[in-house]
Amino acid sequence: MRQFEIDKPDEALRTAIQDKIDNLNKPKGSLGRLESLAMQICMVQQTLSPSLAHPCHLLLGGDHGIEREGVSLSPREVTWQQMLNFTRGGGGVNMFCRQHGFKLRIVDVGVDYDFEMSNVKCQIENYKIARGTKNFLYEEAMSQEEMDRAIEIGAELADECINEGCHVLCIGEMGIANTSPSSLWMHLFCHIPLNECVGAGAGLDSPGIKHKCEVLQKALERFLREHEQYSVEDAIREFGGFEMVTAIGAMLRAAERHTLVLVDGFIMTACALAAVRLYPEAQDYMVFCHSGDESGHRLMLKSLGAEPLLSLGLRLGEGTGALCAFPIVDSAVRMINEMNNFQNANITKYF
Amino acid sequence: MRQFEIDKPDEALRTAIQDKIDNLNKPKGSLGRLESLAMQICMVQQTLSPSLAHPCHLLLGGDHGIEREGVSLSPREVTWQQMLNFTRGGGGVNMFCRQHGFKLRIVDVGVDYDFEMSNVKCQIENYKIARGTKNFLYEEAMSQEEMDRAIEIGAELADECINEGCHVLCIGEMGIANTSPSSLWMHLFCHIPLNECVGAGAGLDSPGIKHKCEVLQKALERFLREHEQYSVEDAIREFGGFEMVTAIGAMLRAAERHTLVLVDGFIMTACALAAVRLYPEAQDYMVFCHSGDESGHRLMLKSLGAEPLLSLGLRLGEGTGALCAFPIVDSAVRMINEMNNFQNANITKYF
Repeated sequence: MRQFEIDKPDEALRTAIQDKIDNLNKPKGSLGRLESLAMQICMVQQTLSPSLAHPCHLLLGGDHGIEREGVSLSPREVTWQQMLNFTRGGGGVNMFCRQHGFKLRIVDVGVDYDFEMSNVKCQIENYKIARGTKNFLYEEAMSQEEMDRAIEIGAELADECINEGCHVLCIGEMGIANTSPSSLWMHLFCHIPLNECVGAGAGLDSPGIKHKCEVLQKALERFLREHEQYSVEDAIREFGGFEMVTAIGAMLRAAERHTLVLVDGFIMTACALAAVRLYPEAQDYMVFCHSGDESGHRLMLKSLGAEPLLSLGLRLGEGTGALCAFPIVDSAVRMINEMNNFQNANITKYF
Repeated sequence: MRQFEIDKPDEALRTAIQDKIDNLNKPKGSLGRLESLAMQICMVQQTLSPSLAHPCHLLLGGDHGIEREGVSLSPREVTWQQMLNFTRGGGGVNMFCRQHGFKLRIVDVGVDYDFEMSNVKCQIENYKIARGTKNFLYEEAMSQEEMDRAIEIGAELADECINEGCHVLCIGEMGIANTSPSSLWMHLFCHIPLNECVGAGAGLDSPGIKHKCEVLQKALERFLREHEQYSVEDAIREFGGFEMVTAIGAMLRAAERHTLVLVDGFIMTACALAAVRLYPEAQDYMVFCHSGDESGHRLMLKSLGAEPLLSLGLRLGEGTGALCAFPIVDSAVRMINEMNNFQNANITKYF
């Protein structure tokens, strides 16, 4: 797998940033989470005047072999149908990208459909690795070469965005059944009992969740039989989706290039978790945007020590939770860039 | 006091709205809070295609007699200094109004300063009732005439905004010491012990909070001595600030005219509470935007059965919490207006 050189942000600037924040004309600390967010962004960008120029959203699509086991409410055809819908601008991700001025890139890394046959190929970027992963109930989801390729594609996509001036990268996914690998990663990387990691996905009922749990338990047993010891890479390769591993590559490359990453809900948090287990320093570049309804998401965020910006009960995926949080990130940046300090404002400094 | 005719939104449209929401191309309920918010806005506006056109923010300023008792960290001069700062665009409220396209109206209803002397009078609307309220430790904060006038001004301001096409009204305040009357209203209207209603305001330390609590307890005892029985109006008049009572008038008139109101933090929630105690139907028109750090705010929201959109630890006032939540409200409206339904999107309906 490609190696990344990810540094923690240089600490030298921290005091100057805190001074600037504390001298804005407001009671100290009174803008709460916006203040800690502004600190993080300034540290990531190593500046007192941060920017969110050219925000970019990567919508990564891929199918999952495990979908054959009936672990999701929606059938696999919904993945390609939604990808086409995104090209027509009618999805959740489209409206929020329009609302917040994000450039949307719709990328096929593993959808089980031949988009080249349709007349929309130009709008879906073709990085297809295979038509879906293998069924991890019986075998590893992808080969080492496929995993390396997915990481590479993610890094390349992030690079292209950043080279075009993108200061904030948002990542979303479309992949029916991808809460299943997310639950397994959460279990393996956080050491939380599997049943606490498994939830309703897009809307399973109780028997559905029970079945999903049993399937994942069996897949886990197979994995543990075959790997007496396992690495983070092993867990990624064995269970991951192409869209998920591509997301990990994009997150790591963004961190390597000191670029802010907005992390969406359950699945993208699982990808962030995997990225952080590979490179702990990567977390400094991530903003955790939304705590969804998926059971276990809160536990996973807690395990990362992450405080999400929003909690709106979204469980649509596509990066919608991260996009909805963007204006909060923007508010933090505007605060430190636009708010008067006490001296300029001629206000008695009252603390 | 002026009377309002506030109806609950007509229920006839509810089923059609829910059908529209349920047929958008997403798993049912998967946009969580955005879906309930879209329902509320459609009901308020009695339409399947709601609008947030011409958002307007009223920044109401007033001083408080109780400030003389040392109940706030900041001295009263900060009220007029900040009002001037707002005219120069350097406050928290300014940057968030710019960010979200709100028209900002800076209104003096009771600031202890003569803005007519300065050269910014044209930017501060002069509705001054008096230079601050009386000290409610010893006497009622305002007379019945002053209270009636404040309600009237609020209604007039809301009317002007709505007549200009405003579909969403946001209200903020600037008034040093105004967490004190808010705590008393909360105590009297929610029957929550006073000490649970009193918090740090803009940043009091523990001895400061203790002193504030003692002062408010004495004021309360005076009030209860003088009013064996009291009405909601009595409590409003005895403790309220001019900016707070004006906010109540604006909220009630907005509700009367079926216009959405964004409710900010602790103080504006206390005003919403007072408005709802006068006219329970008014609550259907209110979106509770932010749960702040002020101790008791969560309790007050709970007492109203309100679920705030954000919880970012803001305690600046000025309406900043409500403004920061606006994009979420906007997302809800875009969802119902812009998202494809299953049929148009050619997607297998998967529930």
